[in-house]
Formats: sequence, structure tokens, C-alpha cells
Amino acid sequence: MTILDRLAALRTLMQEHQIDAYIIPSQDPHQSEYVAARWQGREWISGFTGSAGTVVVTHNDIGLWTDSRYFLQAETQLQAAHGSLHKLDGKTPLQHIQWIKDQFAEHSKVAIDGRLFSHKEVRNMEKALAKKSIQLVTDVDLLEDIWTDRPELPKNPVIDFPVTYTGESREEKLMRLRQMLREQECDSMLLTALDDIAWTMNIRGADVEFNPVVYAYLYVHTNKAILFIDPEKVGQPLAEAFEKAGLSIQPYGSIWNFLSELSADEVIWIDPALASSTIVASIQNAGIFEQTLPVQKMKAIKNETEVQHIRHAMVKDGVALVRTFKWLEETLQQRTVKETELAEQLAHFRSQQEGYQGESFSAIIGYKGNGAIVHYRAKEDSCADIRPEGVLLVDSGGQYLNGTTDITRTFAFGDVDPKVKDAYTRVLKGHIALAGATFPEGTMGVQLDILARQYLWDTGKNYGHGTGHGVGFFLNVHEPPQGFVAGLGQRGTTPFEAGMFSSNEPGYYEACEFGIRIENLILAVDREDNEHARFLCFESLTLYPIATNMIDHSMLTPEEIKWLNDYHERVFHALAPQLTEEERDWLQPQCAAI
Amino acid sequence: MTILDRLAALRTLMQEHQIDAYIIPSQDPHQSEYVAARWQGREWISGFTGSAGTVVVTHNDIGLWTDSRYFLQAETQLQAAHGSLHKLDGKTPLQHIQWIKDQFAEHSKVAIDGRLFSHKEVRNMEKALAKKSIQLVTDVDLLEDIWTDRPELPKNPVIDFPVTYTGESREEKLMRLRQMLREQECDSMLLTALDDIAWTMNIRGADVEFNPVVYAYLYVHTNKAILFIDPEKVGQPLAEAFEKAGLSIQPYGSIWNFLSELSADEVIWIDPALASSTIVASIQNAGIFEQTLPVQKMKAIKNETEVQHIRHAMVKDGVALVRTFKWLEETLQQRTVKETELAEQLAHFRSQQEGYQGESFSAIIGYKGNGAIVHYRAKEDSCADIRPEGVLLVDSGGQYLNGTTDITRTFAFGDVDPKVKDAYTRVLKGHIALAGATFPEGTMGVQLDILARQYLWDTGKNYGHGTGHGVGFFLNVHEPPQGFVAGLGQRGTTPFEAGMFSSNEPGYYEACEFGIRIENLILAVDREDNEHARFLCFESLTLYPIATNMIDHSMLTPEEIKWLNDYHERVFHALAPQLTEEERDWLQPQCAAI
Repeated sequence: MTILDRLAALRTLMQEHQIDAYIIPSQDPHQSEYVAARWQGREWISGFTGSAGTVVVTHNDIGLWTDSRYFLQAETQLQAAHGSLHKLDGKTPLQHIQWIKDQFAEHSKVAIDGRLFSHKEVRNMEKALAKKSIQLVTDVDLLEDIWTDRPELPKNPVIDFPVTYTGESREEKLMRLRQMLREQECDSMLLTALDDIAWTMNIRGADVEFNPVVYAYLYVHTNKAILFIDPEKVGQPLAEAFEKAGLSIQPYGSIWNFLSELSADEVIWIDPALASSTIVASIQNAGIFEQTLPVQKMKAIKNETEVQHIRHAMVKDGVALVRTFKWLEETLQQRTVKETELAEQLAHFRSQQEGYQGESFSAIIGYKGNGAIVHYRAKEDSCADIRPEGVLLVDSGGQYLNGTTDITRTFAFGDVDPKVKDAYTRVLKGHIALAGATFPEGTMGVQLDILARQYLWDTGKNYGHGTGHGVGFFLNVHEPPQGFVAGLGQRGTTPFEAGMFSSNEPGYYEACEFGIRIENLILAVDREDNEHARFLCFESLTLYPIATNMIDHSMLTPEEIKWLNDYHERVFHALAPQLTEEERDWLQPQCAAI
Repeated sequence: MTILDRLAALRTLMQEHQIDAYIIPSQDPHQSEYVAARWQGREWISGFTGSAGTVVVTHNDIGLWTDSRYFLQAETQLQAAHGSLHKLDGKTPLQHIQWIKDQFAEHSKVAIDGRLFSHKEVRNMEKALAKKSIQLVTDVDLLEDIWTDRPELPKNPVIDFPVTYTGESREEKLMRLRQMLREQECDSMLLTALDDIAWTMNIRGADVEFNPVVYAYLYVHTNKAILFIDPEKVGQPLAEAFEKAGLSIQPYGSIWNFLSELSADEVIWIDPALASSTIVASIQNAGIFEQTLPVQKMKAIKNETEVQHIRHAMVKDGVALVRTFKWLEETLQQRTVKETELAEQLAHFRSQQEGYQGESFSAIIGYKGNGAIVHYRAKEDSCADIRPEGVLLVDSGGQYLNGTTDITRTFAFGDVDPKVKDAYTRVLKGHIALAGATFPEGTMGVQLDILARQYLWDTGKNYGHGTGHGVGFFLNVHEPPQGFVAGLGQRGTTPFEAGMFSSNEPGYYEACEFGIRIENLILAVDREDNEHARFLCFESLTLYPIATNMIDHSMLTPEEIKWLNDYHERVFHALAPQLTEEERDWLQPQCAAI
């Protein structure tokens, strides 16, 4: 079946259902960032493989709405479908819905598979379309009938993630959730986000690339709990552990019927930004309480056991990086190295560490101009050859049983351009300012973000991404709610609390020339010398030297130099015991005081 | 009539109307910060004279809800009414409404004069009370019948504020508003905020203490405009000028009938946070478009003429301050000076400047521990005697035809405590960091605020007020929308644009010991060396030296020292030509480089 055959089949079905436009998004039924093959319908119908984008199919057109990262790629990939690219401006909400309103007459009919859209998003779509009396039908999965070789849901086994790692049993977590149910006068809550479920249940899996989650729904009632999951994925010992925790198992697909039969005297708590439109539509009798679920914040605040494990993971990750970059340096003396080969070596050296489970995302290895493409992904046949000159950006991470890592370092080989030195030093100053910040509890990421940007702003420079995101514990590398960003969304407006774990990753990008980013993971901790109010600060947990050959020393204050020297001393003392003598000798000068 | 007589009369009327609770707020019908005597009903019924507080009268109780500034004062002043003080916690919205819900049974009746509450606030009150089926009646002015000597509305004449000051005629301003009406597809808008009306009409008045505004409403239609105002206050030349601008005058009180008769095919734009509940209720037929009015932002962005005038006002203000503080220094060598006497001298020296119109707020002169009371107002019979030792905080401002000023300086006489030096230097570093910030357009106050707080936060210190507020042009000293604050309200989330004029006033307060605040007014301006994006920075317009005898020089960076020396050089060169030789000699050492 060619793309055009698929489109023809879809349009025939649209005709039968009298549908004028069919919308296919990137998400799965759990609003996941990464999705299993079964839910990659947007790629199947359009040919576009980017991670973000929405397709609208009409009887004579197929349009893709995506952001600037993917403009070039989309132009090429849409050719097979004779599709048209619509560039998202990053400001207008629901840009494709505006387009539909412009294209179609009143009383037209637009359809979606409501499982793939959040309740909140569908409500906004309906509101926008209603202004032109256009109907939105939300229960239509047209792909199911025509996508004959559609992949099944993953069958990977579920692992029981023990309390020695999580620090809190699933019984204790359920107890906390039930306490919150009582406080909100609700009877039950439905968890739909896969990382929320994995955290609450102390389970991990491999259903989605990079994210160790399992396709499931979790229903928590004050006096029972049900995990909706493929029972074949749950081994006998885990099933018994679930039973001991008062948790029963029902098939993944039975959630819809279950919800429809909830009684009218039950009030169920759902998160309208995470639960799908179909979930909410299925709750026919029960009352619905709409609010962010408490799980997100509980999961964001790492407990002491988790933090201890993360410290171990950071040592392993640092050792793997020492081996990788020592290998790179030595190899570059002999020959060039492809960006993809460096990515393979990173994964290889990480895989030699105990408890390694895989990459936490696809490594970004950007040499020279490629480093300026913020979400660059090297491909073997088209990537750059790294030579011992110019700037190299390396952003990568690992999944360990002990935790998830995410680190970016920038390297310069040979002489360093003064322009690079200036920008690198400003990025470093910003990184240090955020890492060293002290702030009262309740301070939000939108307030702290400027600390990392201020020195770039001084010279009219900036970077087009957030300064940091939350990070899971052997879970998703992008974990809401908190982070650092110059905006008023959830990430910017969530108050920081002790135990929150985030990235600190300011950067600077000169198109076609170079990219700079310095990223550590930082943990919010209580300051011990509080007098009156409660103040927090950050501890940088990532352990790998920050290159010093791009620093303009005259631009650093004595306090900044002290921060860097203290950090490097800590890195060396943490990694040295795990290294061979040769590796230690290689690392030592990189951790020397400046 | 004693307070108890007044309360008895009110309760009799409440009985007649079957009202269980009557709420009396601080505001006037225009949601003003300062209100004319006619609208000081809360003080009349309760005896409480503070600037903020809400009274609830029931048949057996009178309660006052106010904030921590007024706890002591309220305890004393409420005794005559046998009232009870309810302390606002600063977090719970509508705390008095919660109390009412706790006190009264279902179907109780609560009443207000809806003119004194914004439409938005009443909607929230109704929503909260509806949860317990308590009725809110919004058209009851019970004070009118019992307050026999209630002051009339002020009769002060309206002045025509010429284009040589405003830089834009009222015709041009109306044209801009009509353009926005067309863009929003509205027929008309109603301006209710007194400073919005004064700005749009290029008029000033003296109806309210400190704020040169006039009680009025302004209706702007695409093809007409009506000012609802006491016609006796408008002289013949101004009336003719209004007529020339296509503007007619109707009596202030005729607004209600006028609104009720708007036709059903008209859409009128109102600001739900500024227009009163009664205003909205009066619009019986016309459609209502609810959104912040554009006037607020237009007024916030000062034009070149206004900025030139502000520069002149700053010179005058600086000269007046030189004379005041020279007088203070010399007098303290002979005798002590009462806080109130210093306030009088400030007003006296300002009044000798051309174009002076009065104070822009009641000066805060806080010696030693009084300086730690953020909204302290010295009283002649109870205030402190300033002696030549310890810390003195002076926050004051003037209204000139050329603009509104607001400046705080902190002085130390004699030896300076190291604790004061540390705090003062941190406040100064924060002041300089904000004054020297560069940022891309669109940056909000909630992002910038941390620049002023960071050095205090480093040692677990903070201050309990915003870092800055917008300032009017010969208008209100507190002017929305922009400012610097650690929160997500309008002040924190308004993006900065070139021309916005705000205060920069970090501080630090040690209860019962001392208060420190350093305040300049700063103007957002375009950076001239923009390359790619549009970046802004601030220019500090206030002209008076910042005391250097409390600075711990070792804590300042070379850049901060340069900022201070440059500022002082600018202050001296701006003020010197207006001073006598003796005054110049007195000023010079205070502006010397450190």
C-alpha cells in the first residue's frame, strides 16, 4: 500500500461517514511524548516521521502542522502524499482548527479519534469550531479498518520495581492517594499518564522507546484499585504482589465499559489535560471532578532512597562519559569520527555500567553547524565527520535502575574563536548562576529562568528553548510539572519544592556555525542555614567536567571560579575510584583548578 | 451620632430589608486606590481609618478584614464599634465571604452597594455564596439614608492639560481608541477608572487626595463620545474644547439611565475588573464585550513629550531634596527633628519648584524601627525624634505639571552597624542589577523581580512588598498594569514595552530596628545596539545621590561601582546648574566616586 493508496482508502471511509475533515495527531491515548508503533498513525498516513505534528485530511488535501524544527524534513516527506506544510507560528493556539474554520462552510463535519486528544484540548476545539457551527465528532477511529498491518500493542513484560529503589511501597503510595481523595471529597481517581501509573505501581516496562513505561490505566478507589493492563504482561510473582496490595487486574481494553458502568453516586477525579476526551465521554453516570492529579507532584519530589540511587547513577554515567570522550580524543588523533559513531560509543560505554537499561533519549551529537540545530538527530548516511577542530555539542542520557540521566557538554578542538569563547563563558555564567541560586520556597521556574539567560541578554543574545525540565527516576527524561522557562505555562508556574529534580541547560546557537549547551541535573534542597523563612537551593548531581578551554577567564567573578573549581574537585573525587589509573590521569587535568 | 448610633440605624434598615449581612468596602464607584470623603463609608460606620479593609455588619456583630499593616491600629479603632478584627492571611481569596458562609444558614441574604465592587469581584462573591444558597443583593446603598452629613461629591474645577505636556491631543487618543473598537468589532467602550479618563481626556483635577483625577465616566462610541461629569466643574473654554473634539457632557449621575437605554444592536466594551457590578447590571439591552481596556497600556507607555517633561520634573525634585536634606543635616547639628517636621519640609521645598501641584502620596518618614513599618505614616503627637545617629528611611514624591515623582533614600547618621551595611549593600546590588538589566521585548516583571532580590535571598533575607509599580504622568503614583513582583497577577505578567515607567525599590526591614529601601523611577527604553531581536533596558530617571556611607565596598563588583559612580556623576551634572554655590558644595562629596 502506498501513501496515496492509504489516503484513498481513508477518503472512501470519510465519504461513507460524511466526514469533511479527519484530524490525526502525534499522541497516543495517554498523551505520551513518545508513543508505541501502534499509535504512529500520523506517520502511516502522511509519511512524516517527526516527533510533533498534526495532520488534517480532507477530500482534496492533506495538511501537516508542525514547528520550525521540522520544516525542511516535512517538505520532503510530504511529497509522497502530495501534502502541504503549514508552519506553526508558536503563538496561535489550534492553528489547524483556524484553517478548518476558514476552509469549510457551516454545518461541516470534522472527526477525530477522541482517545488521542485530551479532554481539555477537545473542549477548546469544540468551542472554536462551534463559532462557525462546525460539528466535531469524537468517536471515529478510521485508521483501524484500513491499516491492515497496524502493529499490536507491545507485549513486553512488566518488571516489579522494588522498594529498595523506589523508597516507598505501592501500598504507601495508594494510601497517600486515598488520603487526597478524602480531602477532595472524591470516591476515586483515574490515572492515565503512563509515568504516573509506573510511579504509583512501582512497575517499569519497555512499551515505549526511551521511556520505561507500560500501557495501562489505573483506577484508585477509596476501597479498591484496578490496573487495566494486558494480563499476559504481568508475571505470577508480580500478580501476587498486586493482590497483596489490594490491587486487581483487568484487561487494558475493558476500561471503557468499566467507566461507563460507574454508578451515579460516585465522584471520580480526572486530570482534564491528561485524560482523553473518550475517557471523559465514557463516564456516563458518575460525577467528574476535574483537576490536576496529585500524583504528578508526588512523583516530582524525589525521596531520599531515590536521591541516593540517583547519586550512584551519576557516578556510573560519569565513568561512561570519561571512557567515551577519552576514546573520542584518542581516535581523533588517528582518524575522523562520524557523529553516529560517537552516539554508538556513548551507548556502548553506558551499557557496560551495572543496571543500565538503555538510552533516556536519542543522543544529540552536533558537530559545528549541526550543533546549532536544537533537536538534531544524526543519520549515518548524512551526518558530519568530527575532526580535531571546531565545536562539538553532545547531549545524551541513560536509563539505569538507579535513575535517569541527561547531560550536555560542549567541546572545542584546536584554537577557539573569540566569539565562541564569549558565548560559552556567558552560557557558563548563566549555568552557574542558576546552579548557585538561593530562593524562598514557592519560587517558580519563570522567576529563576532569567538567572541563566542574563549574561547572554546583556549582549542581545538568547536561546530558543527552556532552561530546564523535570526529570524522572528511571522514568521519562521529560517529567512535568516543574522546570525553568520564560513563560506562564505549567512548567514556569509550578513552585519549587525540596526534592524536585530538573535539568539546568542554558545554551547558545549560531546558525550554521556552532551550538553551545552546558547541562547538569540539579536537585532542589533545603538550605541548612535558614533563619526565618524556608529557603531552598540546588545541588548539581551530574558528574562530568565542564570544558575549560572555551572560558574567557576575565569574564568570570571569583565566586564563579570557585564554583567551577569546587565542582571539578567533586567530580574528580567521585569518579576517580571507579577509573583505571590511565583514565584517572586523563581526567585529572580536566578537573584542575583554573 | 456615635459609631454605635450609626450601627443601630444601619441595623434597623437591615431589619426592614430583611438583610442578614451588609458588606462595606474601601473602594469608590471607580475602584480607586484613594477615594473622596463621600465614599469613606467604611470609616464612617466602623471608625477604622486604614486605607484597606472590608467591613461586614450583621445584626449582632461588626467585623473588619484587613492586612497585617493595620492589625494594631484596627484593634484600637474598632473598640468604639465593639467590632472584631479578622486578620487577612494574604492567601485565601474572599476571606470575609468564607466567614459569612460559615456564619449563616442557607437562604440568608447578604447585601452590598454594587457600585463599590467590580463586576468580576461580585461574580466571584456570588459564586462562593451560591455554594451555600446564600443570596447576594447588589443594589442596596443603606448608608445614603442614615449618613445625614454625608459629604457631597467634590466640586473642584477640571483643568485642561495642554498638548505641550501630554504630547497627544484628546482627538488623537479618541481616534486610537476607535481604531481598537473597530478591531474588536465593538461599537463603544466605557471608561470607569478615573486615571484612564483623565489621561484620555487630557484633563486633571483635585477630587481625590494625591491623585489629580476627576470623578467622571467616559463613553466612547465610534461616532460620538460623552463625558459624564458634574457640568459645573467644567469651565467654558474647556467645554468648547470638548465640543471641538466631538465630545458632549452629561451629568455624572445620568450614566445609569444612559446605559440602561443603549440599544440591543450595540456591543459595548467594558473591563470586568474595573467596571462596577452596577455598571454591568445597568446595561440591560446592549451586548457586552468583557476585556481589559486598551487605555491602560496606552497610558502606561509614555510618549517622548511626556518623557522630556519627566526629566524636568526629576531635576526639580532633586533640587528640592538637596535643600531638604541639607536643611536636615544642618538642623540635626543643633536639635532633633520630628519625623512629621521632615515631611513638612519636604513638601515645603518641593512647593517652591515651578509647576508643583502637591504630594503624590503621604510621605513615609521612618526613623529607626519606624522605617521597618512598610506603610508607616508619622503622626505629630506620637512620631519619633530624629537624632544624628541610626538609620532613617524617607519615601516621598511630588506631583508636578511635568510629571509624578516617587523616590526613597535611606540615610545613616554616625557609626554604621555592620548588619546595616550588609543589608544595605545587598539592597543596592539588587537595585543596580534591575536598573542595569537588558532583556528581550515581552519579558515580564515576574521574571525581572528576582534580579533585585537575589543578593538578599543569598543570605535568607527578603522583603514583603513588590519591587516596583508603574507610575503615572502627573497622575496616580501607582499606575497599572506593569511592575516588578514575585507573583502571577497583572503586575507580574504584563510584558514590558519601551516607554513603560516604573519604580525600582528593593528594601530590607529588621522589625523594631531599621528599614532600608532604595527607590528610583526607571524608564524602559530600546537598546540601540540590537542586532537580531528587539532588546530593552532601563534608564534611571530619578536624580538624587544614593548614600554611600552604608556600602560595604568589598561586596560590590567593579561593574556595580561603575554604575554607581556614573549615576552620581549624572546626578551632579543635572542638579548643579539649579543650585547655589553653597548647595553645590554640599552635594559634591555625596556624588564623589567611590
